[in-house]
This record gives sequence, structure tokens and C-alpha cells, in this order.
Amino acid sequence: MQMPEPSARVLSQKTQIVTRLREILPEEAVIHGEFETRAYECDALTAYKCPPLAVVLPSSTAEVSAVLKLCHEMGVPVVPRGSGTSLAGGALPTADCVVLGVARLNDVLETDYDNRFIRVQSGRTNLSVTGAVEEEGFFYAPDPSSQLACAIAGNIAMNSGGAHCLKYGVTTNNLLGVTLVLMDGTVTQIGGAYLDSGGLDLLGLICGSEGQLGVVTEATLRILRKPEGARPVLIGFDSNEVAGACVSDIIKAGVLPVAIEFMDRPCIRATEAFAKAGYPDCEALLIVEVEGSEAEIADQLAVITKIARRHNPVELRESGSEEESAKIWLGRKSAFGAMGQINDYMCLDGTIPVTALPLVLRRISELSTQYGLDVANVFHAGDGNMHPLILFDANKAGDLELCEAMGADILKLCVQVGGCLTGEHGVGVEKRDLMFDQFSAQDLEVQLKVKDVFDPAWLLNPAKVFPLVATAARRLEAAE
Amino acid sequence: MQMPEPSARVLSQKTQIVTRLREILPEEAVIHGEFETRAYECDALTAYKCPPLAVVLPSSTAEVSAVLKLCHEMGVPVVPRGSGTSLAGGALPTADCVVLGVARLNDVLETDYDNRFIRVQSGRTNLSVTGAVEEEGFFYAPDPSSQLACAIAGNIAMNSGGAHCLKYGVTTNNLLGVTLVLMDGTVTQIGGAYLDSGGLDLLGLICGSEGQLGVVTEATLRILRKPEGARPVLIGFDSNEVAGACVSDIIKAGVLPVAIEFMDRPCIRATEAFAKAGYPDCEALLIVEVEGSEAEIADQLAVITKIARRHNPVELRESGSEEESAKIWLGRKSAFGAMGQINDYMCLDGTIPVTALPLVLRRISELSTQYGLDVANVFHAGDGNMHPLILFDANKAGDLELCEAMGADILKLCVQVGGCLTGEHGVGVEKRDLMFDQFSAQDLEVQLKVKDVFDPAWLLNPAKVFPLVATAARRLEAAE
Repeated sequence: MQMPEPSARVLSQKTQIVTRLREILPEEAVIHGEFETRAYECDALTAYKCPPLAVVLPSSTAEVSAVLKLCHEMGVPVVPRGSGTSLAGGALPTADCVVLGVARLNDVLETDYDNRFIRVQSGRTNLSVTGAVEEEGFFYAPDPSSQLACAIAGNIAMNSGGAHCLKYGVTTNNLLGVTLVLMDGTVTQIGGAYLDSGGLDLLGLICGSEGQLGVVTEATLRILRKPEGARPVLIGFDSNEVAGACVSDIIKAGVLPVAIEFMDRPCIRATEAFAKAGYPDCEALLIVEVEGSEAEIADQLAVITKIARRHNPVELRESGSEEESAKIWLGRKSAFGAMGQINDYMCLDGTIPVTALPLVLRRISELSTQYGLDVANVFHAGDGNMHPLILFDANKAGDLELCEAMGADILKLCVQVGGCLTGEHGVGVEKRDLMFDQFSAQDLEVQLKVKDVFDPAWLLNPAKVFPLVATAARRLEAAE
Repeated sequence: MQMPEPSARVLSQKTQIVTRLREILPEEAVIHGEFETRAYECDALTAYKCPPLAVVLPSSTAEVSAVLKLCHEMGVPVVPRGSGTSLAGGALPTADCVVLGVARLNDVLETDYDNRFIRVQSGRTNLSVTGAVEEEGFFYAPDPSSQLACAIAGNIAMNSGGAHCLKYGVTTNNLLGVTLVLMDGTVTQIGGAYLDSGGLDLLGLICGSEGQLGVVTEATLRILRKPEGARPVLIGFDSNEVAGACVSDIIKAGVLPVAIEFMDRPCIRATEAFAKAGYPDCEALLIVEVEGSEAEIADQLAVITKIARRHNPVELRESGSEEESAKIWLGRKSAFGAMGQINDYMCLDGTIPVTALPLVLRRISELSTQYGLDVANVFHAGDGNMHPLILFDANKAGDLELCEAMGADILKLCVQVGGCLTGEHGVGVEKRDLMFDQFSAQDLEVQLKVKDVFDPAWLLNPAKVFPLVATAARRLEAAE
């Protein structure tokens, strides 16, 4: 994938940029050698690569502010980077940019169990936020699959979810406040530590804005009491449609499982061969987990299994012990690894209304036949966040392109049924050209105007989110 | 209270404005007689009054768009109005404005029980939203005290809460999408019907923006299954501080009651005299309600009463029947009426961290002594949303001014402990001059810039939310 070439003007300034960056940062915080910058040339969407001009690793809000101020003055684009786990190219450098990594911003600044929040620097990994509070019996709810590695900064940029977001919400529902550094170096506080703060609610705007509006250096996060217990039930069906209808009925009944995970036959087979979790050989499988006290668990499971039985499941296995619970989850948690063993795959991330599940699964199956590429479905069904994995052979000429065309068709389908292009991975570079399928030119213009307010020079995280054709005029104007 | 005089230019245009409004609206939808417009001269903050130039009552999004487009062309300010129940003067007219009332926009447009949402026109009252879905066993969660009268449009403008928002969140947590008409007449869709929609999240920005950014004509709202049952427990304490500490401990324990209501002695006494609910004569009283299945209710109440007992309550009365539940709630629900029987009062609406409750209650009591005005406290304690009622005598010269000064001191105190000026009533005209106590000039400037984007001519809901001194230059410039 070819990225835009750096402008001659900026390349000739490289020495000057690095010199000035080293005036404001410790020596080890500025990376500029050709070999060293290669470590930052891509994120988890490895099909796209481009080494940046330089990488900086500041360790305070003041340093982030100084870097942005300098780059703003010199007209150098900046690509903010969490842990580089984006599946959508959200942290892909351009050749003329400085990558601003938050990896050194990983301190816990404050914990307040009475008011149930934690304040951390944004480079802290998702899992280590829970790690900082679990001894007191608390946890941080959003749990993306990459939670061992991914940074809170990236979670905020992409509004990340996870298996448990059906009950606890996604990042935006668990974020109380941020310290945001604007492109000109201005340090602002948005939100606070308690509920909705005063003034206009800019926090929702920042969450999910994919590094277009500013760099988050600190975040105040809601923490919750760990539930007393949790228990999954595994339910197998002989068709995707029936499994989809069961999900819809559970949601409609008003019980709130902590997770409803869905796997179809291709995924079940690959997973079973890899992890041997003892899954039934059926068309579709749901893992529904509930949590609470023993009484609450029993109560909720009774409602769920009653609904499931109405749909004639081929298997209904309620966990009776910790070991059985672990075994039920084993296959689901190994699913991505299992698929990677047998094929290259592209992981999509569309969101749809829960009632559209049966229709969308059927259409995906038809598209699979049409394009001649297999699809495995494994996703958070409760909130309609789909992750179809399109299987292809990276060594076969044209297969990736075929796969991308099919992926685009699936995402357009998601939009058509009332959903959207991305549930939690973001638009990044991957889906920027599909934005016209979701938004009218007028809708996009409003989004561009918001960007104008926060980053009038269009220097932050360039060439992402918006279709290039929609931003060309603005970026040209800003560069003059 | 003196409001700004209409400019001579606009007054001389009155005939022209009314003529043009009548070209685009049915005759009965344009109100302009001096007597008729008086019905719209104030909202529930009746200390401020000002009849508008005219009132329009459109009955479709297209009519709202036409009205705004016309007023935009003619440079006439527009004050959007829900049901006029604002306690902060959020719908107070200016003499040179057209009031745009949404009372005729009250249709249900769509109900979808599978995906759990309802789409309504924004003039529909809060309670009638639940009314439209309760036969199917659903309800709309936010429940402001004025829910019988208040409109969804006003709920969105003020981000309204209610007694049950501890569990279910406030309006912003239950709002999925809106149709927003901008001041120039442009009709936009923000959000959708399912979870987080694609693109920048402008929905949070609109919710709580007090009619400054546009007029909401339609709203898609999340509906929830009614719980199987609910049961309150009444707990009396011999000090405010101990009651506050008990609230804080309940929250910290991680149980999530649907409501924690707090009343202090002045409020208990007035209420008891009025409603005879059989409340104990103590310093402070909590009503904690939990809901769910019988097992869940029993489980949660066990945790709560165990915590309460650690704080040596003088009374702990768990409801054993529907009748007992109704009696426990009777006093709380009559509290505002009861206070109104014995005094004039000003109802404040600050929000504070739950842990600051004991400190803030003590300081309010000191301020009460200092100003010589009694204060009764009755509020949603679980989420730190306080409603101190300052008692005064409207017929005694200087008493209202004293009351306002004391109210300002209490709200500043809320900000000082990390809270904010308003939990659910909004800033309106009432608190606009306190905004500098919450926000730095720089913070406010960001908010003004957002207003610039949506309403560059500064015509929407004038003279509210922002301190007049902060907006003077902009409004002058826009008027030229």
C-alpha cells in the first residue's frame, strides 16, 4: 500500500526538526535513526507501512504540549500512537510526520474507591488499570481482546468495547474526564471525576475521535466493584438465523447478560481443532454469561435457558463449576488464534441492530459464495457488533484485493440495515473511503468543521478517518 | 428582574415578522397578541418575566425549519420552549424574540420493542413516552419530578435526570439519536437508533446544550423492560453527616439501588405536617429503593441494611407490602409541595462527589446561620445531585436578594469540592454569571467557539448559559 510521499520541504527540515525536538526532550525520548523508526512504521493493520520522520516518547503532559507546540509552529504533522494495536491503521505514520507515542505516560495518578474512579496517564495499558485496583475488589470494565497490550489512549481514540460491553458499555460510558493537549500545545481539561460535568459535553466528542482533535495525556476512568460471581451457558443451534433470533429475544426480554458471544460453524470447527474445548459440531453457538450473586445468576440463567429452549437448541450446557466455565470460554478466547493458524484473515468490525442479525448473516453467506472466499463469524452478538473474518491467502495474487472488496460490501450492508462501519476498531485508513456510504456530504462537512475548530492547520493524525477527496482542499489550504 | 429592551429596529419589524410567519404557518400556529403572548412570558422560574414579540407552535420538522430559516434571514432571535417547566429560566423570552414552542410536536413516530427504542416528536411529555410503551411492559427511564408536564425537548436541552437516574443514568445515557434543526433551517440527523452511531459523537454535545446549538424536533429514546418488582427501605439517622457517610458506603459497596433519596430535619418536619407519611422525627432520613426479582431485591436489601446498621440508624423500616412502599414514598414525593405550603423557596441544583456530602451539608448549615435563612435539603443523594431549598419570604424586601446571594455561595461550594453548578436544571439565566466560578476564561472560550459553529449569528436562545460579559462582543458583532 503506497502512502503519500513526504514533501521535499519537510524532508529537508528533518535535521532541523530533530534538533529542535532534542532541545525540549531528553535524548532517549527522540528516535530518528532509519532503523529505529521502522519499529513504528505500522500498527496491527500490517498491510500498510510507512516509517515516520521521527518518533518522540514524552513522559509528561508538559512534554507532550511542548512537542505539539513545536510541530505546530514548524507545520509538521503529528501521528499520536497508543500501543500500536489498531486493526484499522489508526496509528499509521505518514512519511512527513512525527509519531508521538504515549508508552512512557503510564503512571497511576490517583485512585478514589469512595467515588469509584482512577486517574491514569493515557499510555497505561487497559489490563493494568484493573491491575491497579483489583486488590481492593474493583475493576475497569471495557475489555478489548488486546487488553494486555492496548493503551487507554488508544481505547479513548477508538471508543473501544470488548466482550463485556453489553452490560457495562464501551469506553465512552466509562470515561469521566481527560486532559487533552490541542495541536497548538494548549492543555485543556474536559469532564471531571464525577458524573456529567458542567458546561458543554465535549467528552463524547473526544472519545472515538481517532486522534483527530487532540492528544489525551491523562484520563479519569470509572471503576466498578467486581461482581460476586459469573457463570456462562453454552447454547448450540442448527442455524445462524435461529441463533440470531434467540439473541434478539434475550435482549427483548430485558435480562442483561454481561456477554453474548456468537460463533458460526467455520469458526467452531477451526477453534475446536485448535483448542479442543469440546464444543458441539453445530451451525451456530452462543456463549451467554451472567453475573451477580448466586441468586441473581440462577434467576437470570432461568430466563435465558427458557428463551433458548423455545428455539430448539441442539445443545444447552450450563456451567456447573469454575473448570466448566473456563472450558466454555476457552474456545471463544482462542478463536482468533485458531483462525490465524489455518488462514490469513481480515477482521471486519461493523455494527448492526440486533434484529438484523439473521438477515445480515444470510447475506454474508451469499457474499461468501459470490466472492469464493470463506467467512467465519465470531462476535459480540448482544450489542450487534459483528466481527466477520474473511479468510484469504496472502500469497495468492489478487486475493487480498478480492477480500477488501468483499469486506467493503459487508460494511455497506451493515450501514444499509441501520448500523455503522465500525463498532470499536475505528475508521483509520482502512475505512476512510467508505465514509461516503455512511454519511452525506453535508454530514461529513459538519465533522470536518469540528476538526477545523480543534486543528485548523490539519496537522493531527493526517490522512485518516475522512475520505481524502473530502479533505484535500482543506489540507492544501492548511499547508500553504 | 429587568430584561434587555427590544431594539427599536426589531420592534418596528414586528408587523413584518408576524406577516411572514403567517405565510409559512397555519393561522392558529402564530400567536402575537399582547395578551396571548403573556402566557409565554416566563417558565417555572417565575421571578423573571418578559413577553416575546411572537410565539409560534409548529407541528412538523419542516415547519420548524421554515421558521428558523425565516428568523435567521431576518436576524430575529429565537427562544425554543418545551413545556416551560425550567427552574433556571431556560425558556425565558427576550423582548425581541420569537418563542418556538414544540407543544404540537407530540406524536409517537415508531416503536421497536425488539431493538428497544421509541422515536417521538420532541414536544411529547416525558411520562407519555412511558405511557406509549407500558402495555408491552417497557418504560422510559429518566423521570424528572415534572415528568407529567415536561417535554422530551426540554429533557434533552437540560440533560434531565430524576430519582431513578442513579441506576439508569440521565437523559444523555438514554438518548440514541435526534433530528436537529440548525438556526439557518438545515435539518440534520445526529446519532441513530442503535448504540453508538458512526462518525464524531455530536449527540453528547447536543444533550444538555440548553437550546444554544439547534432545535430538537424528534428523538429516538432507549426503552427498558420494567423490573419485576421494587422495594424501598427507610433509614433514619441522628445526623446529616452520618446519613451522608452511609450513602457513600452503599455506593462504595457496589450495589446499585435504583434510588437513594435524602431528606433533612426541616424537610422531614414540613413534609410530615403536610402528608402525614409517618416519618420518624430525626435529623436525616434516607429512602433507598432496589428493584429486580424477589431474590435480587432480598439480596440487595440485605447488603444495604447491613451497611446502614453499622451507622447506628435510629430507624430502619423495610417495606413489607405495596401499601408500605407507597407510604414510604408519599412523604418524599410531597416534599416540594409541602415546602411550598409553608414558605417561598428557591430550589438549587448543584452536583458534588458523593464523598463530599457530609462536608457540604455542614457548610450549608453554617451558611444558613450566617445568612439567617433556613434551608431544607431533599435530594438524589446516590449520584450527588443536591437540591437545597432556601426558604425566604417573597413579600419581605431584600429577602430574595439575600436568598440569591446565599444560593450563589452554595453553588460555588459545590464547584470547590469538585462538583458543578447544575445537575439537571441547567444554567439558564439563573446561573449564567456563576459560570466564571466553574470555568476559566479559556474553558469558556472553547464553549463559545462551539456555539459559533452551530449558530454563528448568535440568534438561538439569547442571553442564557454564558455570562453576558463573555458573549457581549460576539453578540454585538453578530448583530451588526
